[in-house]
Parts: sequence; structure tokens; C-alpha cells
Amino acid sequence: MSRLIEGIGQLVTNDPTRGEGPLGLVRDAAVVIEGDAVAWVGPRAALRGNAADARWDAGGRAVLPGFVESHSHLVFAGERAEEFAARMAGRSYEAGGIRTTIAATRAASDAELSANVARLAREYLASGVTTVEVKSGYGQTVRDEERSLVVAREHTAEATLLAAHVVPPDFAGRADDYVRLVVEEMVPACAPHARWIDVFCEVGAFDGDQSRAVLEAGLAAGLGVRVHAGQLTEGPGIRLGVELGAASVDHVCHATEEDVEALAASSTVATLLPAADFSTRNTYPDARRLLEAGVTVALGADCNPGTSYTTSLPFVIALAVRELRMTPDEAVWSATAGGARALRRDDVGVLAPGKRADLVVLDAPSHIHLAYRPGVPLIHAVFRGGVLHNSL
Amino acid sequence: MSRLIEGIGQLVTNDPTRGEGPLGLVRDAAVVIEGDAVAWVGPRAALRGNAADARWDAGGRAVLPGFVESHSHLVFAGERAEEFAARMAGRSYEAGGIRTTIAATRAASDAELSANVARLAREYLASGVTTVEVKSGYGQTVRDEERSLVVAREHTAEATLLAAHVVPPDFAGRADDYVRLVVEEMVPACAPHARWIDVFCEVGAFDGDQSRAVLEAGLAAGLGVRVHAGQLTEGPGIRLGVELGAASVDHVCHATEEDVEALAASSTVATLLPAADFSTRNTYPDARRLLEAGVTVALGADCNPGTSYTTSLPFVIALAVRELRMTPDEAVWSATAGGARALRRDDVGVLAPGKRADLVVLDAPSHIHLAYRPGVPLIHAVFRGGVLHNSL
Repeated sequence: MSRLIEGIGQLVTNDPTRGEGPLGLVRDAAVVIEGDAVAWVGPRAALRGNAADARWDAGGRAVLPGFVESHSHLVFAGERAEEFAARMAGRSYEAGGIRTTIAATRAASDAELSANVARLAREYLASGVTTVEVKSGYGQTVRDEERSLVVAREHTAEATLLAAHVVPPDFAGRADDYVRLVVEEMVPACAPHARWIDVFCEVGAFDGDQSRAVLEAGLAAGLGVRVHAGQLTEGPGIRLGVELGAASVDHVCHATEEDVEALAASSTVATLLPAADFSTRNTYPDARRLLEAGVTVALGADCNPGTSYTTSLPFVIALAVRELRMTPDEAVWSATAGGARALRRDDVGVLAPGKRADLVVLDAPSHIHLAYRPGVPLIHAVFRGGVLHNSL
Repeated sequence: MSRLIEGIGQLVTNDPTRGEGPLGLVRDAAVVIEGDAVAWVGPRAALRGNAADARWDAGGRAVLPGFVESHSHLVFAGERAEEFAARMAGRSYEAGGIRTTIAATRAASDAELSANVARLAREYLASGVTTVEVKSGYGQTVRDEERSLVVAREHTAEATLLAAHVVPPDFAGRADDYVRLVVEEMVPACAPHARWIDVFCEVGAFDGDQSRAVLEAGLAAGLGVRVHAGQLTEGPGIRLGVELGAASVDHVCHATEEDVEALAASSTVATLLPAADFSTRNTYPDARRLLEAGVTVALGADCNPGTSYTTSLPFVIALAVRELRMTPDEAVWSATAGGARALRRDDVGVLAPGKRADLVVLDAPSHIHLAYRPGVPLIHAVFRGGVLHNSL
């Protein structure tokens, strides 16, 4: 089936050869979809001899590529609202933190975990996200990490083994023993269900040597590399990621000059997650420094029940403009094409013939409104693989 | 008609005599609505002999009083997205600022202005707001201020004359002449259509004497007083508002010790508008200082096309918790009961027998989620005056 989308007031293509500026903006545009792919993109007046089976009128609205979320933790059970409230009030909270989520996740059935992923994937879709990466990391036994990934794989092709998320309570003081378990048992058991390996390289989690052991085991098992690095302190994670050819290093709130130079000289993306910094009152990353050095920047929501329980890429874009001093153009690019680069995907994040027909239609005349109208639900409709979702 | 709402996992009543803490929380609650009013509130198990005509199951969700927005500027035409993008990039923007909106508003028909108010009032409702104050202030001629208020009154009982918003371009350098026009012609023409008088008391707008002249004219015409004060600098506005018995002084980002003491000793509310500070990178108000001094604090979104183009009270609550260091309980109280105090309304902002049946149903088990899940559209349904709205 083919469909003509017309009445597009402003189209973001992310293809500078097709329109104005780095976003490749086209006014009064149309898009033709054939099956799950884009067949044609351009000014409506340039479309000749169209014989689409159906037409859909965007009513003058802005249309952009679906958001690409390259960093989420959706395979969990329970929530931690009381812990959040205590943290915001500056009180310590001894009820367990991430251990609460690990215990609840281990106790949950596969069906319960899958329902949680489905619920949050629907929320992501309603916020305009058409591609979402999902990490394990709350199981932390061979069995629970493996079933976390099987559940993630039901919902996305972008499943990531994050067994090395924290040192689990049953290995307290024995991080090296846990790393050995990850390398020797979890990676072999889980690699068939994942595309990526990830590690939380941070003081209090895994050091440089431990992180290297985990990532190299993943690489040897055929997985691509991603790293949580520089969230709370400077450390070895960013350069380790670059050295191992990581698709992305994530958070990057703290980075040395050498880290920035290494990123700029590499194909590794810096994925910034300002919603996590919002919900934990953490230091925001210095996006301008990264952009001016030539680093490729992506934006993600980092949905998880502890530090960033949001699925809203529009909220992340508004924060990136307000707090990271990205321009609306940069923030929109980073949440679409940037996310695609962070997942090494060239079929999403851009609207051009042959690309996936993943489009977001805004209740607004311009992509700038995503930052100009913070908190307002602006997602009018989403096309994912050519399929229209408009009761979001 | 009567309706029983049951299956309420957690009910915020804002009536400490009915439940736990300052929010008067009731678990496993029910509410009975008769016509447009609340007839009964309490634990479901305590409800005897109910013969409601209809039942509605909240499915375990949290329910709270509808949000009360006491500060908005909805009577305008056009928008200013490009100006926003330039400001965020640190560039000056000479295309006109508020003058752009004044020119577009004067050129718009009554029907166009009314459609704009209706569109934004629908957005407010979709964000859980069941009472909204609306200001004039982009007309700035006798005729344009009067028709702005006639339009506002079509949509709300809480219409505010803000003729003294800025010194309009046609009175540049002649602020006293404009104040004379406001006092002698606008107040008499507009008072029949308004409940409140307001003034922007600030360096570059109206000084203490000019503000006093405007507010006293409004008082003499039977209007209640509200003041924009302390948004950009310390100034005379807060104490002037207290002296004149203002229902609210709004913004309060800058306040002296004397200002805070005067507020604490008065019945004047401090209405904080952090979304405006977000969208302009302004200094956030010190809510903790106000709360600890005993000042009554309200929260509003300040929807306007220049400095805060949002209608989302959930976003404002999340900001108030993150940036103003209010607890989730304080923020929710301020966006409901606090807004009602700022409008001197005792029929809204609280759920108890005889109060208006204005309720918000969240897609969440607790009101804390409004801050814990920033940017996520959590409004499941709204009852306004007993009428259910659930396709928001």
C-alpha cells in the first residue's frame, strides 16, 4: 500500500541535500510512503503523477523523523516514587535504591516484565519515539539477565546486555568475582539475544579494568559496544569506549580535554541524558564544548525507575535547549539523526527515499515548538514503519 | 444526576481533617458527585447506602483536585518561536518582542482571539486545569483592552484587566500619559467585564507610583488586586500589593526581607511561575525562603507567547520540585489549593462536600508521579463541574 502525506507545513528531513540548513527543512512538503519505507520526499508542488492508494492531510503541521531513543532501561518491576521524593527533599533514603528494583525484577514473571516494557514502549511511541534501545541490568543473575533480554527482544531489535550495571548485593565487596561471572557465563548465555554490550564505568560501580574485561567479552561474542561514562566523575570510560570502537558513550557530564579530543577524532557518539541530571540534580553535560570540538551528540531520555522515569523526548529537547544551551535545531537533530548514529543505524533518523517510514506529526507549525512549548503534549500522530498511530 | 467514583488508589483532598498530612490523603477512596458539586468524600469502605445513578472506576489511579491556574495571558494572536530560538542561542532579536504580539492582537478579529483562548483553554483542561484566570494586556487601546476582556469572559469568570502590561509603542517615553489613559478611560470601560486589576510593576514597565495609580483605580471600580512584582529586580510591587490587599503578587523571583515579612503577615499569596523562568533563563524564586517564612505559595504556568508558552501544570510541578526545592506535596498543594487562594476562591482546590466537582485522574498511583515522571502526559481524565472529559 502507498500513502501520500500532504499539507506538511514544515518538514525536517535531516538531509541537507534536500532542504535548508543541517535539518534539511522543506516548506509545504509532501512524503510518499510505500509499505514500510519512504518512497518520495520534497515540496508538494514538485510531486508529479502521484497515484497513492491513500492520502493523509497533515493540516499545515510540522513533520519530523521519529525520535530515536538509544538509551533506556525498561525491563524492571516496581517503582521508586518515595525514594525520588526523599532525594528531592535532600533526605537520604535507606530503603534500597537500585536494590529494590533488582529484587522486584527477579521476583517478577516474564509476562510481568514484558507488560512493563510494552507499557513504556507505548509511552515512548506516544512521545514520538519510533526506535528504542532497551537494556537489561536489573536481573544480575545469568537466568535473570537472559530472560530480561528475551523480553527486551520481543519489543525491539536494539537489546543491550548491561549485566555490569552495579555490583549486585549478593557480590558486595567482590566486584571482580561478579565481573568473572559476567564474562564467563552471562555474556555467552545472553549474546544470542542482544545486539550490544554495555557497562557502568564509574566510581562505586566498575573501574577501567573491570569495564574493559566486560566490553571485550561482549566484543568477542559479536556484540557492539556502548558505555555509561562520566556520569558522576571523570574516569577512564570515555577513552575506553573510543578505544574499543563504541557506537556511543553515554551521560558524559564529566570529561577531560583528552576525552573530548578522543571523541572528536572518533566515530563514537556522545549520548547526553539531561532528564537523568534533572531528576537527580546532577551536573548537566557541557554540550557546547562537545559540539564545538566536533563531537557527534545524541539525546536520550534514559527511562528507568530510579534516576529518570520519563519517556518524553520532547521534554529532553526542551531541557537540552534550556540547560545544555543546544539550539532547537541541534536538539532536534540529536534526538533523531543523533540517536540513529548512536545505534549505528542508517535506515532511521532521516527522511529520504528508501529510509524507514518513521514520522512524527506535531500539533505545531515548527520543530522549534518542542522547546518553545515545554511540557505541552505536542505529538499529533506517529507513523512507524508506515503504520499510522493517531490515538496516542 | 449523581455519580460514584470508586477505585481511587489515592485521593488528595487538600482537607487535613479528612485524611493524612496537609494534602488530606485518603487511600482506597471514593467520591460521590451530585450535579456539579461533591456530595461525599472518604474511604470506599465507609460509604453506606449509596444509590448513585452511575459509577466510574478509577482503576486504582490517583485522584486530586483540578489544578487552579491563577496567572495566564491567553488573549493574543500570533506566536514568537523564532524570538525564543534566538534568545536561547544568546542572540538579541530585534524583530519586536511583545510589540509583535500587540500588533497581531490589535489586527485580529474577536472571533480569532476567542478561538485562541478556546484552543489554549482546551490545552489547560488536558493538563488537568479546571479553573483558569485570563488577563488582557496585548490590546492596550480602550477598545482592544475591552474586547480582550469580553473574549476572556466567554471562557472564564476570572478575567483580569492588565492594560498596564508594558508602556505601548505609541506611548514610548510617555508612561504617565498611558497611565492616565488606563485610569481615566480603560478602567471605567473594562471594569464591567473583569474581576481583577493587574499591573506589571518592574524597571522598564511601571514604577511604584504608576502602579499604585492603576491599582487604586481598579479598586475604586470594584476590582480585586493582583500584581506582577519582583520578576526581574527587587522593587516596590510586593509591598504595594500587600498594602492594597492584593489576592496575589506574582513571580517574586526577587524579594527583600521586608517583602517576605510583609507577605507572611498578610493574606496575599505569592504565585510562583517557574516555567517563565525556565523559558527565559531567569533567576528562579526562592520558594523555601517564602515557605519557611509562612507565606502562602501558589504555582502557575503563566501561559503567554513571549516568555512561557506552556499550559502544563504537571511541568510546573516538576520544575518546582527540581528547581524551587518544593516537596512534591507542597508543589501539588500550591498548584491546586494555592491557586484557589490566589483567586480568593473557596469552592475549588479542595475536595469536600459542597465544593465544585473538579477532579483530575492520573495515570499513576500517586501524586508524586507528577514530579517523578517529568514530561510524561499523566492526565487520564478530568471531571469539571461534574462533567467527565476523558478524550483529552
